[in-house]
Amino acid sequence: MTTADFARLIVETPIDLIPRAAIDEAKRSLLNWLGVAIGASSHPMVDIVLDITRETGSNSDAAVVGRSERVDMISASLINGMSSHIFDYDDTLLDTVLHPSAPVYPAILAYAEKHGTSGSDVLSSFVVGLEAAQRVARVVYPSHYDKGWHITGSVGAFGAAASVGRLIGLSTTRMNHALGIAATQPVGLREMFGTYTKPFHPGKAAANGLMSAMLAQRGFTSSLRSIEAPRGFAHVTSESPVFARLTGGWGEAWEIMNNSYKPFPCGVVIHPAIDGVLRLRELGVIPSDVLRIEMLVHPLVLELTGKKTPRDGLEAKFSVYHCVASGLIDGWVGLAQFEDSRVAAPDVLDLRARVNATADTSLAEDQVRIKAVLKSGEVIEVFVEHCLGSKHNPMTTEQLLKKFCDVTRSVMPAHRQQQVIDEVFALDKSASVRRLMKLVSLGR
Amino acid sequence: MTTADFARLIVETPIDLIPRAAIDEAKRSLLNWLGVAIGASSHPMVDIVLDITRETGSNSDAAVVGRSERVDMISASLINGMSSHIFDYDDTLLDTVLHPSAPVYPAILAYAEKHGTSGSDVLSSFVVGLEAAQRVARVVYPSHYDKGWHITGSVGAFGAAASVGRLIGLSTTRMNHALGIAATQPVGLREMFGTYTKPFHPGKAAANGLMSAMLAQRGFTSSLRSIEAPRGFAHVTSESPVFARLTGGWGEAWEIMNNSYKPFPCGVVIHPAIDGVLRLRELGVIPSDVLRIEMLVHPLVLELTGKKTPRDGLEAKFSVYHCVASGLIDGWVGLAQFEDSRVAAPDVLDLRARVNATADTSLAEDQVRIKAVLKSGEVIEVFVEHCLGSKHNPMTTEQLLKKFCDVTRSVMPAHRQQQVIDEVFALDKSASVRRLMKLVSLGR
Repeated sequence: MTTADFARLIVETPIDLIPRAAIDEAKRSLLNWLGVAIGASSHPMVDIVLDITRETGSNSDAAVVGRSERVDMISASLINGMSSHIFDYDDTLLDTVLHPSAPVYPAILAYAEKHGTSGSDVLSSFVVGLEAAQRVARVVYPSHYDKGWHITGSVGAFGAAASVGRLIGLSTTRMNHALGIAATQPVGLREMFGTYTKPFHPGKAAANGLMSAMLAQRGFTSSLRSIEAPRGFAHVTSESPVFARLTGGWGEAWEIMNNSYKPFPCGVVIHPAIDGVLRLRELGVIPSDVLRIEMLVHPLVLELTGKKTPRDGLEAKFSVYHCVASGLIDGWVGLAQFEDSRVAAPDVLDLRARVNATADTSLAEDQVRIKAVLKSGEVIEVFVEHCLGSKHNPMTTEQLLKKFCDVTRSVMPAHRQQQVIDEVFALDKSASVRRLMKLVSLGR
Repeated sequence: MTTADFARLIVETPIDLIPRAAIDEAKRSLLNWLGVAIGASSHPMVDIVLDITRETGSNSDAAVVGRSERVDMISASLINGMSSHIFDYDDTLLDTVLHPSAPVYPAILAYAEKHGTSGSDVLSSFVVGLEAAQRVARVVYPSHYDKGWHITGSVGAFGAAASVGRLIGLSTTRMNHALGIAATQPVGLREMFGTYTKPFHPGKAAANGLMSAMLAQRGFTSSLRSIEAPRGFAHVTSESPVFARLTGGWGEAWEIMNNSYKPFPCGVVIHPAIDGVLRLRELGVIPSDVLRIEMLVHPLVLELTGKKTPRDGLEAKFSVYHCVASGLIDGWVGLAQFEDSRVAAPDVLDLRARVNATADTSLAEDQVRIKAVLKSGEVIEVFVEHCLGSKHNPMTTEQLLKKFCDVTRSVMPAHRQQQVIDEVFALDKSASVRRLMKLVSLGR
């Protein structure tokens, strides 16, 4: 269970060993990742990093998603990795809370765009890169995260180095060196949550991982035992690493099959309540008929999101009352429901005042019991056993398309959205990823 | 003792508070740093990073020392920081084994060259940047280093961010953000020692620190409690941080006054023996008169450097016998004495066979008792109480000049060496650092 074994598996895993279902999940991950990256691409922090890229100079090998600018591969990895984590709306491997796409896909796509790599190689390298990052995460989790490392940034570079290293065709030894160069650059303290520096973490991890692979390609050396050595990555950043997880059972199951996507752009604890109210709506409940909404929720919901009267979009993310009210009225809780104007809208305020929640310790975190008491006296009740986006109730592809269109709406016209969707789902047939990268970069 | 206080001190310390002696020491540090960076500038790892810079594109704002290439500020920080640590011959703050110049000077000089900063601002920002890096190092040392962090890389970015932030003129709050962005990117596992990745650490720290200051300048945000927060830098990377050291006594004494320079390009444990034999030579001992050399040494000397018959330059660094023999014959132990041909030279082999060493537990690590037994029967003995380069016997400026000329000889002609020396020692009078940077970058 050494870094040398790990490097060998990353290099030698044949593309045929990767099942169809894993490639399909890589496409779903890609669409989800592109959506959240494109959607956040006009954030001021993107402008800041682009400004530095302009100041230092750069070629134009790689697209900045959602923008018209083109930059070099390493800068593109940084910027696109950052964009995709700004909304806190990207994918998650729930076992370690690693967000795998943000540090891995940007590096793959930047390298692949420059080199005209095929879609099939892009998707399979993502499956392996995600596997590598999550394997390292599982070695060091949970003490690594508990101590204060933002695991997406601190192990993300392993995934970027592994996947780009595969695309480059590194030898096992050079892959091992690449992993070592990545290992020595963990990015991300949890203390940074709530600031621009949080999304910076996966971006920098992507950039560092790509550069690690490029250095190793040219003969740069590092330790060949970077993960397991006494002063290596695992012992330095974790109290109790479990090295068996690095390579045990490799190829028997793929971590990408555990990837999950957030349906709603807010903390996961509110998701069951939103899911529940959307089900009430599907059962025909309309706001004007409602006397009040009553919910039994997991205690964490009130603790973390019990804000009764949120004043703006940011506060509304911490209000289960707002989410339920706007969800029943609008039929979805997306970015639009967290715009300041929607949070202050009279119809939302009116219904919100009639939403009640009570903690119930018998409920699991992905459950809710919600009922609408109608003016007619009728009561319609729903029990959500596993909410949408949780392990046992993953987002359907149709729901992922809806999310993609929702998050990219402000940046991308509908026909372009459809072109991107079509290209992503046919990517394994595409001779080069360049057409996709052209579709996702655009003038404004 | 918070990051906020620390940021305020870094920003508000007036240049007048910095004593003349500190500025003089900053010049000595600069000459020493330039020498080792120039000397190693043709190493293959420099070519590798330059090749990546060419592949990603870059402007030509900043010099690569010892070379003709010019690159952007961030790439120059990486490359020059790396070059200067390749020989393991740079400066050291012995309290924490932090090598302060390698992660700090490259960032300052790259920024200063682009902006035409004055020599006086360069030198004073180095004093403050070194102070900042060493303050953070003292907060987390020793458990940080014991755990496995290469402290030069892992705290170096604080120094680069602090010094460049001063040159930019960041506000206290923005300086605090810059420190946070640096804090979240510690570079360097000790496991990497012995590979290209070791010198990569201070280079990347310099690049990360410079970029942190540039990001903060543009409004990028991070935690304002990045060092002391429960999941901040100190608690994540150290078992027992001592926060009083962050700001206590700031301005009363300056850490740069503790900076030390290695006289000889090999491990410090051999330095007393080399110092001793050079003193014997000064007393008139010449090799042809010598029957044998006998030494009493600290036990670590034989444990770490007891190789009797080294076969090449690398092995010779671990042979106190070679060092003493070549030192007596050549009158100095510099890079030339570790060339493979010198290690195998008949005159060195002949004398080396007559050098003997015995461990003596009564000696301190910076001591040696050495005697030459002459063919005439005469015995000449020297006791080195504190060897050259140790805390109580620092390198003289004359010796630093000799070292500079020795390490840069293969790259730089003598008249150019003298120009660089003159420019460094007059730097506080120079309106811009650009002339110096022109002198230290050259065609080959």
